[in-house]
Amino acid sequence: MSPGELFNQIRLKRSYLCIGLDTDITKLPSHLLKHEDPVAEFNRHIIEATQEYCVAYKPNLAFYESLGPAGLQSLQKTMAYIPENIFTIADAKRGDIGNTSAMYARAFFEFFDFDAVTVTPYMGEDSVKPFLEFSGKWVILLALTSNKGANDFQGLKVNVDGKEMPLYESVITKSIHWGDSSNMMFVIGATRADHFYHIRKLAPDHFMLVPGVGAQGGSLREVSEAGMNSRCGLLVNSSREILYASSGEDFAERAAAAARKLQQEMEIFLDKKQLLD
Amino acid sequence: MSPGELFNQIRLKRSYLCIGLDTDITKLPSHLLKHEDPVAEFNRHIIEATQEYCVAYKPNLAFYESLGPAGLQSLQKTMAYIPENIFTIADAKRGDIGNTSAMYARAFFEFFDFDAVTVTPYMGEDSVKPFLEFSGKWVILLALTSNKGANDFQGLKVNVDGKEMPLYESVITKSIHWGDSSNMMFVIGATRADHFYHIRKLAPDHFMLVPGVGAQGGSLREVSEAGMNSRCGLLVNSSREILYASSGEDFAERAAAAARKLQQEMEIFLDKKQLLD
Repeated sequence: MSPGELFNQIRLKRSYLCIGLDTDITKLPSHLLKHEDPVAEFNRHIIEATQEYCVAYKPNLAFYESLGPAGLQSLQKTMAYIPENIFTIADAKRGDIGNTSAMYARAFFEFFDFDAVTVTPYMGEDSVKPFLEFSGKWVILLALTSNKGANDFQGLKVNVDGKEMPLYESVITKSIHWGDSSNMMFVIGATRADHFYHIRKLAPDHFMLVPGVGAQGGSLREVSEAGMNSRCGLLVNSSREILYASSGEDFAERAAAAARKLQQEMEIFLDKKQLLD
Repeated sequence: MSPGELFNQIRLKRSYLCIGLDTDITKLPSHLLKHEDPVAEFNRHIIEATQEYCVAYKPNLAFYESLGPAGLQSLQKTMAYIPENIFTIADAKRGDIGNTSAMYARAFFEFFDFDAVTVTPYMGEDSVKPFLEFSGKWVILLALTSNKGANDFQGLKVNVDGKEMPLYESVITKSIHWGDSSNMMFVIGATRADHFYHIRKLAPDHFMLVPGVGAQGGSLREVSEAGMNSRCGLLVNSSREILYASSGEDFAERAAAAARKLQQEMEIFLDKKQLLD
């Protein structure tokens, strides 16, 4: 999917919501457990109920891998339930030497046919480049994450050609030359809204994938005010607040309500930025 | 497996060889392709032929995931072929927020029953800790990798409490307090043997997993002289040189010969260090 098509979907749905499919089999409504594939069945209901309010789904690989081969089968079914016009992100945080990153790219872009995969930058350019060789596919590179541990290394001051900057900033300024705004995004945690104005200057045209709104404490308003660009440039993720809005038989209905609430807030911010005309 | 048991195996086999199972279906001997699971069958032959020369096997997750659910089934079978007294490493380079890292830990330590998993440090302490909560299991944290891209970020000078050091050194000095030498190792590329004396001072007791000997240009002699401690403290990996020593029907025999050659060199270095008495 091109950035233009993604922006079209955002305008059409008045939403830049990404729904994280962190589907935890221990948290599913009990009436689904008798189904032969409770994880896929849960996702099917969630996708049917929420698809009009979001522009992206982001399955979190860990939750599927924890179930072994059957978990990847649930993931495969889940991908088939997602409509064509919705952007799909493999939240996998991969990154390895070239021939291995190329294999991960084949897994996510070819076998599962995701539009994008999250990648970790620690091993540098040759660990990221193999993902960028797939036409029409995206790398979403970790820059500044939403968790407490982000301070351990991402916030360290590094020296790049005599200039001092936080490590995450050097990740953005170096990697921005590896691809462009049509095949790279950055992960910027919503809990770091104070850094967002600065980050937007470093990468004015790129989409940012923003986790951390809700359970982790980030503010949708702050992120939207600081991070939105002329093509929106934001995908704001919510997972648990939507998936587990109810643990009863009304889970899909309640998930839809939670997603709609976020969509309605997003519509206000898109309108303020005059992106809906 | 405890560090003592691992050292016992090293003394018994006179080897600190780890064999990387980067099994690429496009590189298998053609006579195996008619088998219902060529990847598992190839691994079975490799494991039978090489197990007396190595102390660890390291399946590379990317190669299995690129085949979808069937690939994870091949991995499951492969794990069953590995003898109990051989250390198993999931080369997965995972790392995510706490609840997600906990799911990855369940995948590798519970579902697949690996002894260890490779973890990437970019997201910091709370992304690594969930792996350390599994008793008897190991985190192998990326510090200084063997690829060219290692220079992009790992080698950047960072400022930690007023002291300047390369990023990879801050990864070692911080993370060394998250676990201990009985549940943490570090990845140090063999191509960085010049740094090994210094790194060994930072973590005198820890095992190091060393990729990059062979195809990537690292020297077994240099790594062994600089990195060995009183419990050996090294697992040196070789993948392609062993797996693809021949593409004919003699592949297992030739793999055994390649593994034996490395084992025999290792025996010399262990003997020099007087670890075989």
